[in-house]
Amino acid sequence: MSPNVRVGIAGLGRLGKRHAQQLGRRTPGALLVAACSPVAAELDWARDSLGVQTLHQDFDSFVRDPQLDAIVLVTPTTLHAEQAIAALEAGKHVFIEKPLSLDVATCEQVEAVARRHPDRVAMVGFVRRFDPSYAQARADIEAGAIGQPFLVRSQTCDMNDPQGFFVKFAPTSGGIYMDCSVHDIDLARWMLGNPRATRAFASGTIAMHPGLADCGDVDNGLAIVEFDGGARAVFYASRTMAHGHETSTEVIGTAGMLSVGVGAHRDRLQLRDAGGLRHRVLADFFERFSEAFQREMDTFVAACRGEGKLQLTLSDSTEATRIGQAITRSLRSGQPELVQ
Amino acid sequence: MSPNVRVGIAGLGRLGKRHAQQLGRRTPGALLVAACSPVAAELDWARDSLGVQTLHQDFDSFVRDPQLDAIVLVTPTTLHAEQAIAALEAGKHVFIEKPLSLDVATCEQVEAVARRHPDRVAMVGFVRRFDPSYAQARADIEAGAIGQPFLVRSQTCDMNDPQGFFVKFAPTSGGIYMDCSVHDIDLARWMLGNPRATRAFASGTIAMHPGLADCGDVDNGLAIVEFDGGARAVFYASRTMAHGHETSTEVIGTAGMLSVGVGAHRDRLQLRDAGGLRHRVLADFFERFSEAFQREMDTFVAACRGEGKLQLTLSDSTEATRIGQAITRSLRSGQPELVQ
Amino acid sequence: MSPNVRVGIAGLGRLGKRHAQQLGRRTPGALLVAACSPVAAELDWARDSLGVQTLHQDFDSFVRDPQLDAIVLVTPTTLHAEQAIAALEAGKHVFIEKPLSLDVATCEQVEAVARRHPDRVAMVGFVRRFDPSYAQARADIEAGAIGQPFLVRSQTCDMNDPQGFFVKFAPTSGGIYMDCSVHDIDLARWMLGNPRATRAFASGTIAMHPGLADCGDVDNGLAIVEFDGGARAVFYASRTMAHGHETSTEVIGTAGMLSVGVGAHRDRLQLRDAGGLRHRVLADFFERFSEAFQREMDTFVAACRGEGKLQLTLSDSTEATRIGQAITRSLRSGQPELVQ
Amino acid sequence: MSPNVRVGIAGLGRLGKRHAQQLGRRTPGALLVAACSPVAAELDWARDSLGVQTLHQDFDSFVRDPQLDAIVLVTPTTLHAEQAIAALEAGKHVFIEKPLSLDVATCEQVEAVARRHPDRVAMVGFVRRFDPSYAQARADIEAGAIGQPFLVRSQTCDMNDPQGFFVKFAPTSGGIYMDCSVHDIDLARWMLGNPRATRAFASGTIAMHPGLADCGDVDNGLAIVEFDGGARAVFYASRTMAHGHETSTEVIGTAGMLSVGVGAHRDRLQLRDAGGLRHRVLADFFERFSEAFQREMDTFVAACRGEGKLQLTLSDSTEATRIGQAITRSLRSGQPELVQ
Repeated sequence: MSPNVRVGIAGLGRLGKRHAQQLGRRTPGALLVAACSPVAAELDWARDSLGVQTLHQDFDSFVRDPQLDAIVLVTPTTLHAEQAIAALEAGKHVFIEKPLSLDVATCEQVEAVARRHPDRVAMVGFVRRFDPSYAQARADIEAGAIGQPFLVRSQTCDMNDPQGFFVKFAPTSGGIYMDCSVHDIDLARWMLGNPRATRAFASGTIAMHPGLADCGDVDNGLAIVEFDGGARAVFYASRTMAHGHETSTEVIGTAGMLSVGVGAHRDRLQLRDAGGLRHRVLADFFERFSEAFQREMDTFVAACRGEGKLQLTLSDSTEATRIGQAITRSLRSGQPELVQ
Repeated sequence: MSPNVRVGIAGLGRLGKRHAQQLGRRTPGALLVAACSPVAAELDWARDSLGVQTLHQDFDSFVRDPQLDAIVLVTPTTLHAEQAIAALEAGKHVFIEKPLSLDVATCEQVEAVARRHPDRVAMVGFVRRFDPSYAQARADIEAGAIGQPFLVRSQTCDMNDPQGFFVKFAPTSGGIYMDCSVHDIDLARWMLGNPRATRAFASGTIAMHPGLADCGDVDNGLAIVEFDGGARAVFYASRTMAHGHETSTEVIGTAGMLSVGVGAHRDRLQLRDAGGLRHRVLADFFERFSEAFQREMDTFVAACRGEGKLQLTLSDSTEATRIGQAITRSLRSGQPELVQ
Repeated sequence: MSPNVRVGIAGLGRLGKRHAQQLGRRTPGALLVAACSPVAAELDWARDSLGVQTLHQDFDSFVRDPQLDAIVLVTPTTLHAEQAIAALEAGKHVFIEKPLSLDVATCEQVEAVARRHPDRVAMVGFVRRFDPSYAQARADIEAGAIGQPFLVRSQTCDMNDPQGFFVKFAPTSGGIYMDCSVHDIDLARWMLGNPRATRAFASGTIAMHPGLADCGDVDNGLAIVEFDGGARAVFYASRTMAHGHETSTEVIGTAGMLSVGVGAHRDRLQLRDAGGLRHRVLADFFERFSEAFQREMDTFVAACRGEGKLQLTLSDSTEATRIGQAITRSLRSGQPELVQ
Repeated sequence: MSPNVRVGIAGLGRLGKRHAQQLGRRTPGALLVAACSPVAAELDWARDSLGVQTLHQDFDSFVRDPQLDAIVLVTPTTLHAEQAIAALEAGKHVFIEKPLSLDVATCEQVEAVARRHPDRVAMVGFVRRFDPSYAQARADIEAGAIGQPFLVRSQTCDMNDPQGFFVKFAPTSGGIYMDCSVHDIDLARWMLGNPRATRAFASGTIAMHPGLADCGDVDNGLAIVEFDGGARAVFYASRTMAHGHETSTEVIGTAGMLSVGVGAHRDRLQLRDAGGLRHRVLADFFERFSEAFQREMDTFVAACRGEGKLQLTLSDSTEATRIGQAITRSLRSGQPELVQ
C-alpha cells in the first residue's frame, strides 16, 4: 500500500464541512491532519467532530505546514487562484473547489504554475464528472453507443430558496451562468469530445427574485453555444424550481441519445395515493452528488498517491470559464458573443 | 366492401351505453339499428342520442328481429348463456359481455350450441386481449422475446368506491375472483400458451368493506394457480385502491420479462411541484381500456363480415370460469382446490 | 340531434387519407360525401374504401358543390390560403391542415375573409391542442397548478428517415422551424397565455443530411424566443432521432412544472431482458397524435353543427407563422431577429 | 467523541471482504484490528489491502482476543449461532450476517444468551432495513401516508447464473425461501407493524436449473402468508432473471400504496436508440444495497459506541426464520402450513 496522504483543508463552510467529513471519515488513504479557517468555531468543529489535530487561522502558515502532502481549498472563489498557486509553490498537491476563477487570464496563470510543478496534482472540483451516471454516459459515448454526438442539452435547476440567499451572493457569484451552468458547460465539452466553442447567445428572465436586477443577473437563464464542427449546446439554469434540485443532461448523437438525471428521484420509493403516483425529488446538489463527492475525493487522494491519472485538467476549468464568460456577456449585450 | 352488419344491442346500463356509442358512432361496418331493454328511459336514450330506430322491451321479439345480423349482449350475467343460445339459434352472430356464465357446465352448453352454428360468430368480451399493449406482449412472446414463459403475475385493482356499490352486487357477482380476476386468468392462459390448470389456492382479506363478509367475499384477494408443465400464476384483485384503477400483468420467461400497465398513467402528463414528481392515474377500466373496447367491437363486426378469424374462443371463457371457480372454492375452504 | 355535416375533403396524400378515414368512419355527425384530388388513384381509394360518392378532380367544382356544408383541406401548403378563402366565400365551413401559410400577410388575408363570414367555422389543424395530455396541461395551468408560467421548453423530434424524404421537400417546407417547430410555437403561446413575442434567436446544425445546405435548412435546430413580460421559450427540432418520434413540452411556472410526452412510450408495455429495461418508442406523429386527430375532427364537426366554440383561432395560426418566420430569419442571419 | 470500536471480522468470503472493506476504510468510529479465517490467502488479503494487524486462523483464539470490542460474523450459516453465543459470552458486541440460523429453536437460544448480556449489542444483518428507500417507506407508513397497511407484495429476484453456483449451495442454503425470501419476510413484518403470522402456502417451479430437484428446492417460488388481523403477504423469489437483480416491495394500505425498487435502475442514465428507451438494471444485491451495507455497519458501530438504539432485534430474525420454515414446509407438502 502507498503511504497515506496527509491532507489539510482550508475553508469550512457548508461545502467545506462536507469535504472535511469525507476526508476525515470515508476517504481511503487520506489522513485529515490540519484545517485552516479564520473562523474559530469552524476550527473547533474540525477538532471536535473529526479529531483534526493542527488548526490554522492563517493561510500562510497553513500552506507551509511541513506535515501536509495535499491541500484542499473550499475558500471563497476570489481566493482560489492565489491560494492554489501558493499551495503548488509550497510543494503541495492541491484540490480547488470550482470555479478556479471567474477570470480566464487568472485561470491561465494557475495553469502556468501547475505546468512548472508537473509532479504535483492540481484538480478542480467539477464534481459531476465523478457521478457514476455521468461517468457511464461518457464511457458509453466512447464505446459508440450514440454514434457521433452533436448536441447537448443540460440544465442545473435549484429548488427555490424563498429567502433568496443567492441574491446577496449575486454580486460576487459571477452570475447564474458562471455559478450554475459552468458545470453544464464542462459536461458538454466532455461529452462532445472537447470541440472549440465559437459563439454564445443568452437570454434570461427574473421570475421570482427582483433583487437580482441590480447586478444584471437573472433567476432563470437560457443559453446556446456553438462549437467548431457544427456541434451545439443549449443550457438552462434556474434558481426557482418548486419541486427540488433537478440537474439533467441529454447528449444527442447520430445513433441515439443519452440522458442523465431526468426526474431527479430522491430514492427508489414511489407513493400512490389520491394524488396519483409520485416520487420525491432531490433537495439539492449535495443530495444529488453525494456519491460523486466521495468519488471525487477518492480520485484526488489516489492521484496524490500516484494511483491513476486524472482525466480532468486545469485547462478544462479554463475553457469552462471562457465559455461561461461569453454567455454572461451575451446576457448583458442581448447579442451573440464570440468565445475568446 | 362487405355489406354493413346490422346490429342490435340488449342491455343499456353503464357498459351497455359504451358499447352502443361505439357501435353507433365509431365502428366501421356496423349499423346499430335496434336496442332492447326493459327500461324505457334506456330505450329513449338509444333513440335520442344514437338514432336507433327499432326499440324492443322484450328480449324474445328482439332476438327474432329479422333485420338483425348480430346481437350484442350487455345484460345481467345470469341471462348471458340463455340469451346467447337464443341468439345463435335465431341465426344471429352474438357478442356476450364477460362472463359467459359463473358456471362451467353452462359455459359448456353455450359452446355446444355454438359448435352447431359454425358459421355464426360467438365471442365473449375479454376486452384486454384487444388492448394494444397486451396484444403486443402476446406477439412478443410468440416471437421469442422472453424465451419460454413460465410465470404470470397479474392484478386487477379498482379504485375504492366509498359507497361500496359492489357490496350490493356481491351476492350475484360470483365474488372478487370471478368478477375481476377472470380477466387475469384469461390473460395468464393466453400468455402461457394455454396450459392446463391443475390446482388453485386463494387467500383474501376485508380491508374496508365489512359488508362483504355476509356472502363470503373479500375486497382484496390473492391467488396462486398451478399449471401442468410447471408454469405458475399469481393474481391480485382489489376493490380498495386509493389511487385509481391499476391493471397490470407481468409475464416472466427464461430470457426476459414483459410487463403491461404498471403505473397506470392516465395520459402523457407529469407534474412537478412541492409534492415531488407525479402523474395522474386512470380512474377505472373504461378509461384504461377505451381503445380496447373500440378494437374489440371492430374485431367482432369484422368477423361478422367474414374478415379475420377470431383467436378468442368460447372455450377460453369456459376455462377461465373453471379456474376462477377453483380459486373461489379455495377462498372458502382455506385449502388448495383442484381445477376441475 | 343536430343534422349531420356533409363534408368534402381535398387532398388525399398520407395525412389526407387519415383525415378521410376519420371522417368516413369514426367522426360522429359527419358524412363524408365528396373528395377532390387531381390524382385518379386517390379518388378511387376514397370511393372503394370509404364509399365516397362524389369525386372531383377540379377544386373549383368541388368548392362549389352545393351538397357540401364543410370542406377539409389537406392540400399542399402553397394552396391552403387561396382554397380556404374560396371555401369561405362559397359559404362552406373550412378546416385547413397546418400551416395556413408560410407568409404572415397571407395568413392575415385569410383572417380578414373569415371575419366577413362570422357564421362559418374556419379552423387550422394545430392538432396538438386536441391531444388529451396537452389539453389537460392547459387546464391545469388555468387552475393554477404551476403558479405563473414563464418558460416553455418544447421539442418536435422525428425519427431519422434514411431516405431523407424531407430533403426534397425542404425548398417548399419553409424550413425545419416552419415545418416542425410551428407546433411548439403554438403550444408555447397557448401555455403562456398568448404573450407578444418580441425577439428570436436560432442556431442549427446539419448532423446527417448535407443536402439541406442548399436551401439554408438544417436537420437539427435550436431557437430561443423572448416574450413581452419576461417569458421565454426554447425550441428544439430534429429530423434525425434514432429512437422514434419524441414530441415533448415542459412548462415551467413559479409553483411547479408540467411536462408532456417525455419518453414517448408507444404503449403500456415494458420489456426486461439482458439489455436492461426498455419500452418501445412512438414511430411518428401519426402514432403519437392518433387520438388528437380524432378529437380535432370531432371538434371541427361539432363546431360546424353549432356545438361548442372553438378556442383555436386563425389568429393563433398567424402568430405562430410570425414567430416561426423570425426564427427562420435568425437561422440565416446568425443574429437575433425582431418578431414583426 | 466516543472512543473508537475495535472490531474483528470472521469470514472473508465475497461478502466478508465487503464488510471488511467497509469497516477498514469507510465506517466512522471503527478500527478493524483483527481478522479470522481458516484460509491463509484471506488473511493475507486482510493484512495487505486493509492493514489488519492481528490475524487468527482459529475462531476460539479470535473470539477471546482481548483487544476486541466487537466481532463481525460472516462465516457459514451453520456456524452463526454458536459463534454469536461465544462472542456474547466473551463480552463482545456481535454482528451476525443473516440468517442467524435456519432453525427456530437455535435462534431462540441465541436470543436467550443475548438477554443475559443486555449491555452487549447483538444484531443480525437484515441489510434492507438500512436502505434509504426502505427506511423512508417505513417512516412514511408511521406518518400515515398510506393509512392502515394490510398487504405486502415483495420479491427477491436474482439474475440467472448460468453456472448455477447456487445449485451446489442448495443442500445447505435452506432453500430459496430461507435464502432469498427471508429478507422479504422481514420487510413484510416491519412494514405491517409485526403482526403474528398464522399460515403459509407455497408453490414453486424449476424453470432452468433441474439440479435443484434433488434437494426439493426450486428456482422460482411463490408464497402467501396470512397474519392475525387479516393482513396478507405474497412473496416471489427467483434465481433466473434475465435482466438483473430486481428486489422490490409494495405495501398497500387503506389510503395508498408504497413501492420500493421497481425497475431496478442501475443509475440515473437512460439510453434512447433504435431499440427504444432503456436503462441498465442492477447486477446483484451488492450493487443494489451498497449504501445500505455502509449504513448497516455505521449503525452497528454507532450502537457499540452507545449512540442510538437498534430497532432491529434478534427476535425479528427468529420470526423471519419461523415464517420462512413454514413456507418451506408448504413447498414440500403442497398444503398450507401453520406458522409455529
